[in-house]
Amino acid sequence: MTPDGNLSATVDPGKPRKGGLEGVVAATTALSKVEGTTGRLIYHGYNIHSLARTASFEEIAHLLWFGHLPNVTELSDLKARLAAERTLPDAVLGVLRALPATTEPMDALRTAASAWGAAAITGKPTTDQAIAITARFPVFLAAFQRLRNGMEPLEPRAELDHAANYLYLLNGQEPEEQHVKALNAYLVLLADHGMNASTFTARIVASTESDIASAVVAAVGALKGPLHGGAPSKVQDMLRAIGTVENAEPWLRHALAHGDRLPGFGHRVYKAEDPRAEEQREMARVADPREFVLARRVEELALALLDEQKPGRRLYTNVEFYTAVMLASVGLPSDLFTATFAVSRVAGWTAHILEQINNNRLIRPESEYTGPYDVPFVPLEAR
Amino acid sequence: MTPDGNLSATVDPGKPRKGGLEGVVAATTALSKVEGTTGRLIYHGYNIHSLARTASFEEIAHLLWFGHLPNVTELSDLKARLAAERTLPDAVLGVLRALPATTEPMDALRTAASAWGAAAITGKPTTDQAIAITARFPVFLAAFQRLRNGMEPLEPRAELDHAANYLYLLNGQEPEEQHVKALNAYLVLLADHGMNASTFTARIVASTESDIASAVVAAVGALKGPLHGGAPSKVQDMLRAIGTVENAEPWLRHALAHGDRLPGFGHRVYKAEDPRAEEQREMARVADPREFVLARRVEELALALLDEQKPGRRLYTNVEFYTAVMLASVGLPSDLFTATFAVSRVAGWTAHILEQINNNRLIRPESEYTGPYDVPFVPLEAR
Repeated sequence: MTPDGNLSATVDPGKPRKGGLEGVVAATTALSKVEGTTGRLIYHGYNIHSLARTASFEEIAHLLWFGHLPNVTELSDLKARLAAERTLPDAVLGVLRALPATTEPMDALRTAASAWGAAAITGKPTTDQAIAITARFPVFLAAFQRLRNGMEPLEPRAELDHAANYLYLLNGQEPEEQHVKALNAYLVLLADHGMNASTFTARIVASTESDIASAVVAAVGALKGPLHGGAPSKVQDMLRAIGTVENAEPWLRHALAHGDRLPGFGHRVYKAEDPRAEEQREMARVADPREFVLARRVEELALALLDEQKPGRRLYTNVEFYTAVMLASVGLPSDLFTATFAVSRVAGWTAHILEQINNNRLIRPESEYTGPYDVPFVPLEAR
Repeated sequence: MTPDGNLSATVDPGKPRKGGLEGVVAATTALSKVEGTTGRLIYHGYNIHSLARTASFEEIAHLLWFGHLPNVTELSDLKARLAAERTLPDAVLGVLRALPATTEPMDALRTAASAWGAAAITGKPTTDQAIAITARFPVFLAAFQRLRNGMEPLEPRAELDHAANYLYLLNGQEPEEQHVKALNAYLVLLADHGMNASTFTARIVASTESDIASAVVAAVGALKGPLHGGAPSKVQDMLRAIGTVENAEPWLRHALAHGDRLPGFGHRVYKAEDPRAEEQREMARVADPREFVLARRVEELALALLDEQKPGRRLYTNVEFYTAVMLASVGLPSDLFTATFAVSRVAGWTAHILEQINNNRLIRPESEYTGPYDVPFVPLEAR
């Protein structure tokens, strides 16, 4: 990985821009590449389709942090290091206990990660710290989930892999193999995605030479926004409201006629099918065949209706749509969906933080001033 | 304030760039303008020199949030609203109690603000929320300062203005008028500064439609980095190490000969004297005349030596240098300096967050991929 943070604007400088840094290259990265027009996603050389159903989350984290897929020994070493970090520091437990039970899970995760940084982190970001915080995201979330339901957090189980241990800590039961498989695949698919808003946020914070916790906490806050982390629970709400295959067409036509935005469709970068949605569709088919029938029918109809009503917009199924089906099928409550996205993406965030500081320059853009000039100061009494 | 988030690259696209988004306009703003080459800073039309010693922090916050300096009634209304928000929610107090006494103040502030968001904030950012969090930054920091010293937090005093109440909550004594005046001037000078890294971070988080706490928490993390929030305590360390006017020249020559970077000099944007440093110099002269003599001598010598050894670099005194002298003179411990910067800048952050969402578009740049392509997947056992 040889980041150099080079900047280049690929847009025509004379052309009006849309205000969201479209077409502006904010950093170089060797971690992942999103090809929006062809619908390809690459993790450090590997097409996502070659990884989605064959690799473990730990292998992907190794790829992102160390630049290559691990061999058997390297993988077992990384798994041992992750397992050893599955502890809940007293400060974090105390902080989680102090939060109201009504706290949103992303707020709890943000606050727990911040407390962890306060209690445990000093110095420049390191790979050890990346492992330490990635190992703990499931621990923090599961502890919060238990506490808000009046139960004490469980002890992590070192012999379980990352996905399995998360499910165990949430439910207190040996997770089913197909649930582990589905969750693992989800974690693989969401681990990195180019210069998305939370990753960019993490890199800016890291570029100030702040610590890894500050950067990760900032990224959690960015992912919380529905324009980024999405609202996968809204997909579930929609599927529940539709209820039956027969109701799908009238429901969708009614929603579109009222100008409602359908959750789970359209993406800023992808103008082709999101390759993650493609993989998730296949996993959802296996994970919950009954639910899949409805979801697939809604998807097909929605795509047809969107194409009919918004021709040329090229709206495709995005990663949110089957996330809802998949994460519900493994038993996660819907308000943990976005936080579980963070359980995956923290691997990418920390890899980007390490890449950023490897050849750092403070990210500090400029702004165009549109306010008044030369306003004479008038003392308070004379205003 | 009519932000539109327009983007324009003022750099020549064919020229190699330095990787920190230099010359890239990331947003438009009516809040402040930094003129680096002439050393001017404007807050919504007012030159900073016209505000620094005449306006209160509350007047500046009003200017940033509402777009004009308040009249007497508006100011008294805003002061009452700020005073009413000076409460420490149970969740935040519980969180602060759970943090170790060795926690860095910026980490405590980040965690407290996150807990406040978890317990108190829902929905889109509003001016009420901007007032609520700005009012509470001194409350959080002072509570942390008391708790880490084994004391209970004090009750805020509604009749005191923002700067005075902060000093009172920290020390439990009626603050001296000249301390209040110096701290108020500091808070006025640091309240906003164009598209700096923490403000940019806050705007990106807000652009995802996340909440105000997530955006402010992210900004605190960015400000924590020494390349942004600086290390004003290092200026104090330097002044203490130098000790006497006589020792200034040999100490500085020795430091520069060893390649040490002198804290308090040089700025990414200013290639002229930082107008804030100019104001702070005058305030430091009054606030602590004894300390000022040494600081001024060190400044003069450092500028001369830097010019001699790095001709053409145009290194000027930055805002950090006299921050140390000023904040020490009002009795703040040096590890609260950067957190006190945040007490001021949160007014600017929240104004930028409100400006961003007023005409929002998700800030999501692109990245240039420098990693490998088409790497064939090899199963774990065969690696």
